[in-house]
Amino acid sequence: MNELEFIKYMSTTIKGKKSVVEGIGDDAAVIKHTPHKYLLFASDMLIEKVHFLKSADPFWVGWKAVAVNISDIAAMGGAPKHIVVSIGFPNKKSPAYLKRIVKGIKTICDKFEISIVGGDTNASQNLIIDVSILGEVEKRNLVKRSTAKINDLIFVTGSLGEGRFKHLKFTPRVKEARVLVEKCKVNSMIDISDGLFLDLTRLCKASSLGARIYKSLIPVSLRAHSVKDALEYGEDFELLFTLSIKEAKRLIRYIGKTGYPPISLIGEIVPERGGLKFIADEGKVERIKPSGYLHF
Amino acid sequence: MNELEFIKYMSTTIKGKKSVVEGIGDDAAVIKHTPHKYLLFASDMLIEKVHFLKSADPFWVGWKAVAVNISDIAAMGGAPKHIVVSIGFPNKKSPAYLKRIVKGIKTICDKFEISIVGGDTNASQNLIIDVSILGEVEKRNLVKRSTAKINDLIFVTGSLGEGRFKHLKFTPRVKEARVLVEKCKVNSMIDISDGLFLDLTRLCKASSLGARIYKSLIPVSLRAHSVKDALEYGEDFELLFTLSIKEAKRLIRYIGKTGYPPISLIGEIVPERGGLKFIADEGKVERIKPSGYLHF
Repeated sequence: MNELEFIKYMSTTIKGKKSVVEGIGDDAAVIKHTPHKYLLFASDMLIEKVHFLKSADPFWVGWKAVAVNISDIAAMGGAPKHIVVSIGFPNKKSPAYLKRIVKGIKTICDKFEISIVGGDTNASQNLIIDVSILGEVEKRNLVKRSTAKINDLIFVTGSLGEGRFKHLKFTPRVKEARVLVEKCKVNSMIDISDGLFLDLTRLCKASSLGARIYKSLIPVSLRAHSVKDALEYGEDFELLFTLSIKEAKRLIRYIGKTGYPPISLIGEIVPERGGLKFIADEGKVERIKPSGYLHF
Repeated sequence: MNELEFIKYMSTTIKGKKSVVEGIGDDAAVIKHTPHKYLLFASDMLIEKVHFLKSADPFWVGWKAVAVNISDIAAMGGAPKHIVVSIGFPNKKSPAYLKRIVKGIKTICDKFEISIVGGDTNASQNLIIDVSILGEVEKRNLVKRSTAKINDLIFVTGSLGEGRFKHLKFTPRVKEARVLVEKCKVNSMIDISDGLFLDLTRLCKASSLGARIYKSLIPVSLRAHSVKDALEYGEDFELLFTLSIKEAKRLIRYIGKTGYPPISLIGEIVPERGGLKFIADEGKVERIKPSGYLHF
C-alpha cells in the first residue's frame, strides 16, 4: 500500500459529517465555522533521516515543520491562524538544540501571525515534529484542487527547481495565494510539495480532467540543477493553480499594474480523455507519469 | 529541560492572539468560534517502544492514539468532532498491519461520532501516530484546570490503578464529562493521564492552590496491583475535578436518582500555602511530590 492508496483507503473507510464541507483528499479539510468563513484543518509530520538530515540546523527544521502546514492553508486560499506542535525528542540531544527548534517555530509563527496554542513532547529515537494547523478562509475565497475546469489556463507562482536549495528554508506562498483569491476567481489550486508532475497529476485526478504543459513555458530557476529538478524534485512549495481565460486576463491586468505576484503560464486543462501531456522540445508530446516524491 | 520546563518555555516564548481564549497549558487550547461555542484544539503523539511495545495489537494502538485526544477534549467539558492523523510507518511492516491501525482509529471515531478529515503518511524507523483533534464546548460548559476554588471538594470518576491493564484499551470519559458540566458547575477539571499525584499537582499549580487528599477515600480498583499504582502509575484516563460544596450536593442528588456517573470524593482544595498533602494511614500527613509519568 503506497501513500496514494493509503490516503484513498482512509478516505473511503470513513464516514463524513454534516459539519465537514471537505474531508480527506485536499491540502486541508474544510469545516463549517462562521456565517462567512470556513475553518481549514491540516497536519504534516517531519521525521529526522526521512525529511531532514541529522546534521540539519534545528532552527530550520522547526521553521519547515510549520512552513509545510502554512503552505497547505495557502493552497486552499486561506490564512493560517493557530498551530499545535508535537515533538518526539531524542534524549541524547541537548536542551539548546530543542530551544533552537522552538526558536525556528516561533520565528515563522511571528512572521505569519500564527499562535502556538498547544504542545506535546515525548522521548523518541529520532527527532519527529508533527504540526497541526487551523486556518480560516472566506467562503467565497475557498479554492479546492478538485474544481479545475476544461480550458482553464494553468499557472505556477515563482520559479521551479530550487527544492534542493530551499528544502528547509522556504517561505510559504500565503501572501501570493491571498492576492490571487482576492483579485480573481481561482478555479483550482494545490501547492507543489512533491514536484510539478506529481502535484499536477493530483490536481487533474481530483478534477477528473487532463492537462497539457509546455516545457518552453516552465519557469525553471536559474539555480536549478536541471529541468528535471523543476518537474520532479519537489520541495519548491510554489502554488499551482488554474484560471478561466477571462479570469486570467483580469489577473494579468492586475499584475501589469502592481508587478505582483510573480506567476507563469505553463499550460492548459483539457478533457480527461486527453490525459496528462508534457510538450517537450520541438513539440514532442510525452505522457506525464505521476513521478515525484512519494513518502512511502 | 524536562517536559514541564519545555511546555513552560514554549508558552512563555509565544505571544497570543485575540481569537485565542486559552493557549498552551491546559488539556486543549480554547479558540473563539460561534456566539455560543468555543473550539477546542489539542494534539497527542504515540511512539512505538515509548508508548507501546512493538508487539502491541495495531488495532488498539490506533484506538489509543485517538482516545488520548478525546480524553483531552472531555477534560475541558467538550465534545470531540474532527481529527487529522499523521502516521510514520516502517516499511518493514505489512499493509495488513497498517489497515488494522486504521480499523482501530475508525472504530473509536465511529463510537464517538468523530470525522477523520485529514491524513499524512511517511516512512519512519519506528511506528509513530500523531493525532490532532478539534472539539466544541458551549461557552457556559468550558472547564479549565486553572480555576479550582478554595474549599472545593475534589472528585474522580471511576476507579484508579487500572492503567497497567487499560493501557491501550481505555474508553475516554466524554459521556461522564458531558453529564458533569450539564448537571452542575464544575470549577476545574483535568484527565488523569500520568497518575493522580502528578495530575493533581498540575491542577493545583495552574490554580495556585493546595490540596489534601485522603488515602482512605481513593477508589482503588480491585484489579490494581497496589495503592501506589492508583496514585502514580497513570494511564487511567479518569477525570479529576473540583466542585463547590453546593454544586457537589446538587451532583450527588442527581446521581442518587440516576446512579450515573460513578464518582468518588477524594479530598479538598486548600489555600496554596497548605501545599499538596496526602493523608495516609492513621492520619499521617505526607507531602505529595509530583511523581508520575513524565515523557522526558
